[in-house]
Amino acid sequence: MLILALESSAKAASAALCRDGRLLAQTVQNNGLTHSRTLLPMVDSLLQGAGLKLAELDAVAVACGPGSFTGVRIGVSTVKGLCWGAELPAVGVSTLEAMAWNGAAAPEGAVICCVMDARRSQLYNALFTFENGAPQRLCPDRAISLDELCLEIKNIENPIFLVGDGARLCYNQFLERGLPALLAPAPLEHQTAWGVAMAAARQTPQPADRLLPVYLRLSQAERERQARMG
Amino acid sequence: MLILALESSAKAASAALCRDGRLLAQTVQNNGLTHSRTLLPMVDSLLQGAGLKLAELDAVAVACGPGSFTGVRIGVSTVKGLCWGAELPAVGVSTLEAMAWNGAAAPEGAVICCVMDARRSQLYNALFTFENGAPQRLCPDRAISLDELCLEIKNIENPIFLVGDGARLCYNQFLERGLPALLAPAPLEHQTAWGVAMAAARQTPQPADRLLPVYLRLSQAERERQARMG
Repeated sequence: MLILALESSAKAASAALCRDGRLLAQTVQNNGLTHSRTLLPMVDSLLQGAGLKLAELDAVAVACGPGSFTGVRIGVSTVKGLCWGAELPAVGVSTLEAMAWNGAAAPEGAVICCVMDARRSQLYNALFTFENGAPQRLCPDRAISLDELCLEIKNIENPIFLVGDGARLCYNQFLERGLPALLAPAPLEHQTAWGVAMAAARQTPQPADRLLPVYLRLSQAERERQARMG
Repeated sequence: MLILALESSAKAASAALCRDGRLLAQTVQNNGLTHSRTLLPMVDSLLQGAGLKLAELDAVAVACGPGSFTGVRIGVSTVKGLCWGAELPAVGVSTLEAMAWNGAAAPEGAVICCVMDARRSQLYNALFTFENGAPQRLCPDRAISLDELCLEIKNIENPIFLVGDGARLCYNQFLERGLPALLAPAPLEHQTAWGVAMAAARQTPQPADRLLPVYLRLSQAERERQARMG
């Protein structure tokens, strides 16, 4: 199965081409430009580089959240557009499950702690183990406070392996509280489209109009509206 | 320091932009196309994506061997051309030292065993440790037989962590001979331009005309010529 995957849930953006679980090509950009400007040129140069046309793909995958509301919306919208134009099915995967594939570098038996900075003193988080070459989920994706996460982590005896764009923040906070943890090595610290493609390969593609962003929380506009409405 | 780095020593090719040790962008292609066709478009799209011009770089780095003779020649020639045109200095780094940066994922105390398949029953190899966030060299780059390498490895008590495009081959051969070893996780198994940029940041850029490919062995044409000349 030939999959194009996009990841735009945080500051960096990436696009990857994978065939049957093997990485054919990947581009990662972390230059501070908006994803709406960087994503499509990345897709274009990936396909051109591989001598492929959109129509030759089997599916387009995207990290549909949680993550930056704007980033997730741009990723999901871009994939809907690509799929609509080329009549391709889509696969939406959890951003946290995609980054759990970086847990391939974790020591045996470790708990993979996937974390994104959700602002407002919260983290987007899920826990996984890495067994038989793939992540196994231990809990659903959630928005959780650092305090709550620390309480949970305290009761886990396995080594804790941190990945994601919130990994460094968590690592420092865990250390301050005397909770030992391992930080994923630099090249595997952040989520990438490679993980999205790997997670997508285990799911059944669906019509792209069913893709929905997963925010896990109300947006700032919705919170403010609710507050005004009393 | 803003560095553009190229890696084309094996089947895959990659280009990376790093500023002061931080990855700004990277493209990896493993589509079987020749590097002379893929490298320059990759550089072009990286620079365009980052909104940068060649002249804004501080240096261009390249993995100048050992590795595929053709791949190394294409990489070194491309960098000479880029540097000549934009009046930039170059940095040539050892392919094996560049891939040793993937040792960031190795367990503490491990010996990083960097290996490329050199054909003719040989490997290109060097050994490193990973200390204070960077590889420390234990031996010079060399072309060595699998048997010789196994004899050396047998006397090392530390865990052996294999990286490079010859890592999987070595891993299987080591297992057959009862030598325990760890294979770098899939996303860090192969050398990339990121490692070239990291290694280059520790060297002083030099005039690009001093760049030379490092083959460690005679080419097939030279061997055959020597045989003919007696």
